[in-house]
Amino acid sequence: MARVGVVGASGYTGGELLRVLATHPDVEVTYASSREYAGKPISSVHPNLRGYYTNLKFSNVSVDEMLKRCDLIFVNTPSKVSVDITPQLLESGVRVIDLSPDFRLKNPEDYLTWYGFEHPAPDLLQKAVYGLPELHREEIRKAQLVASPGCNSTAALLSLIPAVAGGFVELDRIVVDVKVGSSEAGIKPSLGTHHPERANVMRPYEADGHRHVAEVEQELKNLLGGREVKIALVPHAVGSVRGALATSHVWLTKNITEQEVWRMYAQRYAKEPFIRIVRGAPFRYPDPKYVIGSNYTDVGFAVEGRISRAALMAAIDNLMKGAAGQAVQAMNIMLGIDERNGLNTPPLRPA
Amino acid sequence: MARVGVVGASGYTGGELLRVLATHPDVEVTYASSREYAGKPISSVHPNLRGYYTNLKFSNVSVDEMLKRCDLIFVNTPSKVSVDITPQLLESGVRVIDLSPDFRLKNPEDYLTWYGFEHPAPDLLQKAVYGLPELHREEIRKAQLVASPGCNSTAALLSLIPAVAGGFVELDRIVVDVKVGSSEAGIKPSLGTHHPERANVMRPYEADGHRHVAEVEQELKNLLGGREVKIALVPHAVGSVRGALATSHVWLTKNITEQEVWRMYAQRYAKEPFIRIVRGAPFRYPDPKYVIGSNYTDVGFAVEGRISRAALMAAIDNLMKGAAGQAVQAMNIMLGIDERNGLNTPPLRPA
Amino acid sequence: MARVGVVGASGYTGGELLRVLATHPDVEVTYASSREYAGKPISSVHPNLRGYYTNLKFSNVSVDEMLKRCDLIFVNTPSKVSVDITPQLLESGVRVIDLSPDFRLKNPEDYLTWYGFEHPAPDLLQKAVYGLPELHREEIRKAQLVASPGCNSTAALLSLIPAVAGGFVELDRIVVDVKVGSSEAGIKPSLGTHHPERANVMRPYEADGHRHVAEVEQELKNLLGGREVKIALVPHAVGSVRGALATSHVWLTKNITEQEVWRMYAQRYAKEPFIRIVRGAPFRYPDPKYVIGSNYTDVGFAVEGRISRAALMAAIDNLMKGAAGQAVQAMNIMLGIDERNGLNTPPLRPA
Amino acid sequence: MARVGVVGASGYTGGELLRVLATHPDVEVTYASSREYAGKPISSVHPNLRGYYTNLKFSNVSVDEMLKRCDLIFVNTPSKVSVDITPQLLESGVRVIDLSPDFRLKNPEDYLTWYGFEHPAPDLLQKAVYGLPELHREEIRKAQLVASPGCNSTAALLSLIPAVAGGFVELDRIVVDVKVGSSEAGIKPSLGTHHPERANVMRPYEADGHRHVAEVEQELKNLLGGREVKIALVPHAVGSVRGALATSHVWLTKNITEQEVWRMYAQRYAKEPFIRIVRGAPFRYPDPKYVIGSNYTDVGFAVEGRISRAALMAAIDNLMKGAAGQAVQAMNIMLGIDERNGLNTPPLRPA
Repeated sequence: MARVGVVGASGYTGGELLRVLATHPDVEVTYASSREYAGKPISSVHPNLRGYYTNLKFSNVSVDEMLKRCDLIFVNTPSKVSVDITPQLLESGVRVIDLSPDFRLKNPEDYLTWYGFEHPAPDLLQKAVYGLPELHREEIRKAQLVASPGCNSTAALLSLIPAVAGGFVELDRIVVDVKVGSSEAGIKPSLGTHHPERANVMRPYEADGHRHVAEVEQELKNLLGGREVKIALVPHAVGSVRGALATSHVWLTKNITEQEVWRMYAQRYAKEPFIRIVRGAPFRYPDPKYVIGSNYTDVGFAVEGRISRAALMAAIDNLMKGAAGQAVQAMNIMLGIDERNGLNTPPLRPA
Repeated sequence: MARVGVVGASGYTGGELLRVLATHPDVEVTYASSREYAGKPISSVHPNLRGYYTNLKFSNVSVDEMLKRCDLIFVNTPSKVSVDITPQLLESGVRVIDLSPDFRLKNPEDYLTWYGFEHPAPDLLQKAVYGLPELHREEIRKAQLVASPGCNSTAALLSLIPAVAGGFVELDRIVVDVKVGSSEAGIKPSLGTHHPERANVMRPYEADGHRHVAEVEQELKNLLGGREVKIALVPHAVGSVRGALATSHVWLTKNITEQEVWRMYAQRYAKEPFIRIVRGAPFRYPDPKYVIGSNYTDVGFAVEGRISRAALMAAIDNLMKGAAGQAVQAMNIMLGIDERNGLNTPPLRPA
Repeated sequence: MARVGVVGASGYTGGELLRVLATHPDVEVTYASSREYAGKPISSVHPNLRGYYTNLKFSNVSVDEMLKRCDLIFVNTPSKVSVDITPQLLESGVRVIDLSPDFRLKNPEDYLTWYGFEHPAPDLLQKAVYGLPELHREEIRKAQLVASPGCNSTAALLSLIPAVAGGFVELDRIVVDVKVGSSEAGIKPSLGTHHPERANVMRPYEADGHRHVAEVEQELKNLLGGREVKIALVPHAVGSVRGALATSHVWLTKNITEQEVWRMYAQRYAKEPFIRIVRGAPFRYPDPKYVIGSNYTDVGFAVEGRISRAALMAAIDNLMKGAAGQAVQAMNIMLGIDERNGLNTPPLRPA
Repeated sequence: MARVGVVGASGYTGGELLRVLATHPDVEVTYASSREYAGKPISSVHPNLRGYYTNLKFSNVSVDEMLKRCDLIFVNTPSKVSVDITPQLLESGVRVIDLSPDFRLKNPEDYLTWYGFEHPAPDLLQKAVYGLPELHREEIRKAQLVASPGCNSTAALLSLIPAVAGGFVELDRIVVDVKVGSSEAGIKPSLGTHHPERANVMRPYEADGHRHVAEVEQELKNLLGGREVKIALVPHAVGSVRGALATSHVWLTKNITEQEVWRMYAQRYAKEPFIRIVRGAPFRYPDPKYVIGSNYTDVGFAVEGRISRAALMAAIDNLMKGAAGQAVQAMNIMLGIDERNGLNTPPLRPA
């Protein structure tokens, strides 16, 4: 049993890591950090976990103590906090999966542009592996530091990869319209997440440039060997609690049928354990509703020949494939065990 | 008091017409048709209207009888039904507001292409006025036949008109991503609208070409004096009951700031009684949530200079500005009364 | 036009008062108070009211200044704040409708028991009129101080009054199980109202004795000329934004049919402009869903002869008949105008 | 591996059985019946199960064929269908878990009273074991026929058992107010489950006597050795998809503190693997929200000494502990394996 720690365990992503790891056959959670709740039982913050982790309490220990207890650590902190902790952890040789954006971008200048701070450890950016198994499985296997992708980015990338790699879309006119549930905003209340205000919304936000664009453009450019890609991405809060859907609207550079698109996606994702291609009635297009609670990405598409355009769609559970599930998938790869361990429960339906 | 009839009064749009007209100061509803519920009180189908229309029952009478009772008739039937009824009504001289798509398109061939039937009264297509007051107020005033716009079309057009007229967007790369509530599908149950399946969805539909595209392209082309416009429109069902949001993603043909966009929108819509421009925190972008129950369209925008693109947004209540409210607005114009009569209740909040 | 002020105008009940009063034909809002938002436009806090109140800003003035501007004042503050302001207002002769609980109870000791403070103005408690028109219409007409009922209390009382007055229920075994939407908790965010936590709940709260019990027991006892009534009331938060349903479970003291219950309710409420009796398929029992946005109370009942018990139900919009609407109804009575003025818009459906 | 069949596999409970059994370590699903979908892949009806059961299709075979394929059969049909199939299955010696109400009641006359039909196999009623492990674990172990409880009944019983057994509540004044999500109504669409009508409801139904009362009264009477118990039960549809909460309102026959109630519940349920007792802030009372996707029942209580009454609450996922999960728990007991096998995934949160 690998001993794993979760730094930042009291929020939704932390809680989801604990939920998934609670029944994982190959690991044991030996540390769950929280400054605010140190000393309290896990279930006092995560009522779904009543009856689990009865021998573990939230705590808040030194890096040294953390290293004694853990073989692998999930760092699940806000941006600009991980950059302080993670370098210390790495020095000791422990393996780290960072769920914050702090090590996702390769170019240090991008942190200034997109996140507004100068990155204090630019050399680590080269060392970090972007934790999308569908792009970097082999590098993840050997990585000491995995930078787990954002939820919007995961959905955007998985909708686009086969099309961009396939060379049939205009690279400078890609629109990614994202819809997300409220859990994406985390556990901290605000007016915007207050139920009466948040219920039933169709609310665009960060419409003039969302930070996740940086990693999507980076990874697609990398996929193309350096060719630039422009992404116009606008996320929209909708009334669900869980789920994220990316609808990527693309303009075609050549005639292509839905059948041909299907072939390219099927081929690209043939061996992916967590990608399912959706096609045919009665559930014709991907909908996050049917992946809730699981690590799956449902992918689908529509082609409108009349005006040479397509809609490429990817649906995920933002807390699973968009956060905790994907991090555990990376962990499984790093540990050399079956990628699906701890992640094989089917999605809920209806939910 | 004008005497008005509602053909097709037992569904959601019919019910919304009855709701709005119940307290309208200048009209009286003298006819509410339903084959299925003929003889039953209005409130047996529309429980919100208990205590209203206590002297009116659903009925189903001949066209002649209808004409005796009514000065103006809302025809609110499915596509291909209105084409049978409306010509007869028009012959008698009564004024008609048709809420179906049967008279929205000018080119008879478009009915074959988009709706799959040969239009039996192509000459009436020229006579009909597309009932968007923001484009055709003066023609509506004199019209005998108004073809009231679809809900997706209304949101799409109102988001785009000032930008397209302003000449700063690429006309062949316009993406309109629409989110709509469940009431848009009407009152008839199906698996897709069954609550357990419909709750919490983020579900694309008709992603390879929605019929409303035809009227959006027609009206924008007309606005530009005949220049072609391509619209890639994908609607998405989300978890709300009411509301529609169009996010129009456009690529800019010149440098333009949000301030300049604001000026163009403010100017274009300056005298519109039902358009409100949204700008500035804390409710920065339009959200249908804040127009529920009203005839308003909230319009807003975001510009991302980095890649020369903008998001242009319009939020409506799909049953009001997207259907019944807009039809009543047209009626007010036709009757020469204040356009806001019967439509001045502020939106609900929270809702 | 009467000039009215709203003390506490930035929350949900304050916003709802402004919404209703915006189109009220007989009054003008001349004052809307907010400490936090003083100087800001109404629509910066209430985005639904964009385009309304364009000449009014939130402000925060002295009592003297308030009295100059207003003929009648809605005091809409948290408990223990109104007791400080209201006495000063009353001294000047202005009429006050207090939406807080501070003047609802007649017995000063009840404030110690249920609210935990010693009431500083016990003499005013006798002067105050409990603002439920269905019980105290004539006293409201002449009142200087109306204490507007709580939302749970309104639903509980209106479900029970005819049955308790009719003498067919056990008075010491009444259970009132209430379901309420999230708007009932007000505009201030907390973990309990955070959308991911509040969506989809079925959450009992204050299950060991809710404060509203005090006013329900007081009014029923008063109705019975002093006979004691025991109320076991448990509210439950459910997933809606608006609405409150009281299901009063009672044990019968004699054989009675649904038909007889109907007659007693119909008789008691015959002249009530805002009570509708629900009976018969397909919408057999009251549901707040069909009163949303209106001041109506839908009342209904079921009798189970087998075990001599009945369920008596009342459905309201908690922000309307449960708060702002009821206060405006009281205002109309006080002003001697039609009770329905400003309150005649039918409920939304679907919503 | 035991070979199990699911008769009635295309609805929500059937789908939930397939979901749970998909990763169950000790059984294999060898038969999934559906008349309507015979020949179609499982995922064409249950899109969450894409990628599972790739070698199984819906089919509809004779009882003989069924018996060849299966060691144990879940019969998941509407009332009055199981009474036709189950006797044949039992004759062959196969073990059956019936999820319909057809074998829950011991007294054949109760079927006439509550279900409106004469039971054709009254002798089997004595043979059947009521499948609530918390009451009948040992009998389930040896049973050939288990009659799995209804969802309302499960919540009602688990909230009441320790109190009724403990002898501190009035047995003829028990009110059970139930709240349930929409999945409880099954997969067949109707106006009442149409999303626009079903969203945001607080809708009482079968308020004059719900069928599940029969089994609740039977089991409590049995628990008391034959003493009669009266249950006034009213279910309410609320806006969630999953979940059921029973709030049992009881009047106390003696002074008892929450601490004492806690002791009785803790003792009674000490060894129950799927009952969790909820107590203490910040999640003070049970809420189905925190058991979603799991087989847990969260139980809690509040005592109001002032009027000698208590609220006893039990929260379940209606498709799990209220249907499929409980049936699998019974199967585990029948197979002599760990009761938690296949059921150990923690609930989702937030959901």
